[in-house]
Amino acid sequence: MDLDLIRELVVKNDSKIVLLVIDGLGGLPTEETGRTELEAANTRHLDRLAADGICGLTVPVGPGITPGSGPGHLALFGYDPIKYQVGRGVLEALGIDFDLRHGDVAARGNFCTVDKDGLVTDRRAGRISTETSAALCRDLRGITLPSVDLFVEPVREHRFLLVLRGDALAEGVSDTDPQRLGVPPLPAEPERPEAKETVRLVNEFVGQARERLDGKHPANMLLLRGLSKWPQLPQMAEVFGLRAAAIAVYPMYRGLAKLVGMTVLPTGARPEDQVATLKENWDKFDFFFVHYKTTDSRGEDGNFDAKVAALEEVDTIVPAIRGLGPDVFMVGGDHSTPALLAGHSWHPVPFVLYSRWCRRDRAEMFDENQCALGGLGVFPATAALPLALANARRLTKFGA
Amino acid sequence: MDLDLIRELVVKNDSKIVLLVIDGLGGLPTEETGRTELEAANTRHLDRLAADGICGLTVPVGPGITPGSGPGHLALFGYDPIKYQVGRGVLEALGIDFDLRHGDVAARGNFCTVDKDGLVTDRRAGRISTETSAALCRDLRGITLPSVDLFVEPVREHRFLLVLRGDALAEGVSDTDPQRLGVPPLPAEPERPEAKETVRLVNEFVGQARERLDGKHPANMLLLRGLSKWPQLPQMAEVFGLRAAAIAVYPMYRGLAKLVGMTVLPTGARPEDQVATLKENWDKFDFFFVHYKTTDSRGEDGNFDAKVAALEEVDTIVPAIRGLGPDVFMVGGDHSTPALLAGHSWHPVPFVLYSRWCRRDRAEMFDENQCALGGLGVFPATAALPLALANARRLTKFGA
Repeated sequence: MDLDLIRELVVKNDSKIVLLVIDGLGGLPTEETGRTELEAANTRHLDRLAADGICGLTVPVGPGITPGSGPGHLALFGYDPIKYQVGRGVLEALGIDFDLRHGDVAARGNFCTVDKDGLVTDRRAGRISTETSAALCRDLRGITLPSVDLFVEPVREHRFLLVLRGDALAEGVSDTDPQRLGVPPLPAEPERPEAKETVRLVNEFVGQARERLDGKHPANMLLLRGLSKWPQLPQMAEVFGLRAAAIAVYPMYRGLAKLVGMTVLPTGARPEDQVATLKENWDKFDFFFVHYKTTDSRGEDGNFDAKVAALEEVDTIVPAIRGLGPDVFMVGGDHSTPALLAGHSWHPVPFVLYSRWCRRDRAEMFDENQCALGGLGVFPATAALPLALANARRLTKFGA
Repeated sequence: MDLDLIRELVVKNDSKIVLLVIDGLGGLPTEETGRTELEAANTRHLDRLAADGICGLTVPVGPGITPGSGPGHLALFGYDPIKYQVGRGVLEALGIDFDLRHGDVAARGNFCTVDKDGLVTDRRAGRISTETSAALCRDLRGITLPSVDLFVEPVREHRFLLVLRGDALAEGVSDTDPQRLGVPPLPAEPERPEAKETVRLVNEFVGQARERLDGKHPANMLLLRGLSKWPQLPQMAEVFGLRAAAIAVYPMYRGLAKLVGMTVLPTGARPEDQVATLKENWDKFDFFFVHYKTTDSRGEDGNFDAKVAALEEVDTIVPAIRGLGPDVFMVGGDHSTPALLAGHSWHPVPFVLYSRWCRRDRAEMFDENQCALGGLGVFPATAALPLALANARRLTKFGA
């Protein structure tokens, strides 16, 4: 969807839009029952919403493409995830709630193992514990570089975050991770002329790190990927005319919401805490992004029954949200996470939109098969936000 | 779908993908029965596949666009048929199994009739017989041009193929066919500066041909269209990471497969011969394109019952293909050829994909109406190949 077109048509009014993202929502049927997680779950409130609303299946990025959390959410926020790509370094920073600032360069780091000739023998340093990693990070903070501040934060196991903060840092620094074994780490290279000085600093950091890590086998070296700056995404207030707020527990989703200009509201961790936050802030915003994570986590665990239970949990907050009387209430997912695959997948994701003007379809249950037959069909996830604006009567006529 | 994105995400594994193309698959219902060819046919193996798999309708090029064989197949191979256009001259060469080489310029030729003032009175020379055309082609081979070799091959009735072979030939030569009557054939003109010398050679050929055809009424002149060279398409091995093989009987489809880098396997003409070829080569390739032609031919004949019989014939090879245990088995068509229209049509085409991870839908029969309700919806044919890669677990995650 062309954001320039939407921007031209947007008008403001007093309507309220709620987007409930059930992370990793879509699933796959088990062989025994032929039922997906959603089909197995007793989600009577979501089913009622599907019966009252219009349903479909969203394609997050493109046919066959399995999205990460970043692209999956940006699409639901109305942004083409191929056009607006967010670097891995930035996503890593968002994921640990690091206070990344405009101008910072962030990198995803791996501790790795090199042999006596400096050749990589394990890109993940035997998946050292997060505690070991944290101690190494503390040591690396002792590195000094001219005219930049430096942050090294543990993430999980062998993964860490490196952030350089300075006045003249540039994107366009290549990865040092060779992505294979038996070769030395790559020197960072400038992918654009203006990145030369940043490359020099990154290589200086890596050089000093090599000395500090020497003898710390298996974590005796490090690799950097996805060096990137806070991306300049069009902001939701400017493009969609929405005062948007995020009610999310996990850092990654709060961070993604910040990228598009949402106000991140402090909230408790339970779904009912999130609903309370929604109620308290109902008058202050036009658009609310409510994020529920457990479905994805249990899907990633490969635990079908636990994912079913998570679906039943998130189902319980649906009546309270409907009770607030949103003009538009959408429920969808950033991607599928079938328990059978124990990971994200490419399968289109169930979606329902309810509004007074939605044109109810024949779908009576909120699941993959009924949504496939819904009035929205199989459609790009980027269409959800324009549809919400239309149903909220926030888009004027195009052309005379 | 953006091939650059797919290329970045592709990984290799041992999976096998089979694409069975039933040419001209889609149809239209007769008034008497209300049934399409597929609905009238007893295709129980395809129905079983539809019940086990996920179905949809493919749009080969765009809504309302009736595709030729070239665009219809390129789309199923994953290539945007609007972006990757293959010249008519090249398609004519592929269609008669001419050994076209890189650097050759090929043109589709028509014998035509001109009056005493040189104005075109019949663009098809009264559809002279193929034998008459062949004799004229033999005569035209006597034409000599400086520094190029020249091939003139009959195709069917008034149609023939012209190929120039030389070191410095260029594309960008305009058609000589004025596409209307009462005007003279057009001189070839350069559409780009580098085509000037090729234009000179083409006009020299046309001039000599005019003299040789003088008095051969009704075929006393010729018209050339679609002068083109072997196109530089991204190759399947490079873009999709697939060792791809084609098992097709007709030259056009073997040629289209060659354009995208498939290995064309020698095969017998009967469907069971093609299955035998598939079996023999099972271990040597990752992707197999199996082409079945008769459905299209009988559709073009306007023979509903014969198209039904052809559908029942191709249905018989489905179990043997499934028996090989492909990780992904797709059945689709390059376009519809409804017997009622006796030609290609724009109607979306039934499609089914079976894999362990396909997420079976409610479609129970392989026909236009059930596929319209399938889990894939109505979708661009170019999505078939990315979906196959995803189902074969050959695509990694996009973004973090």
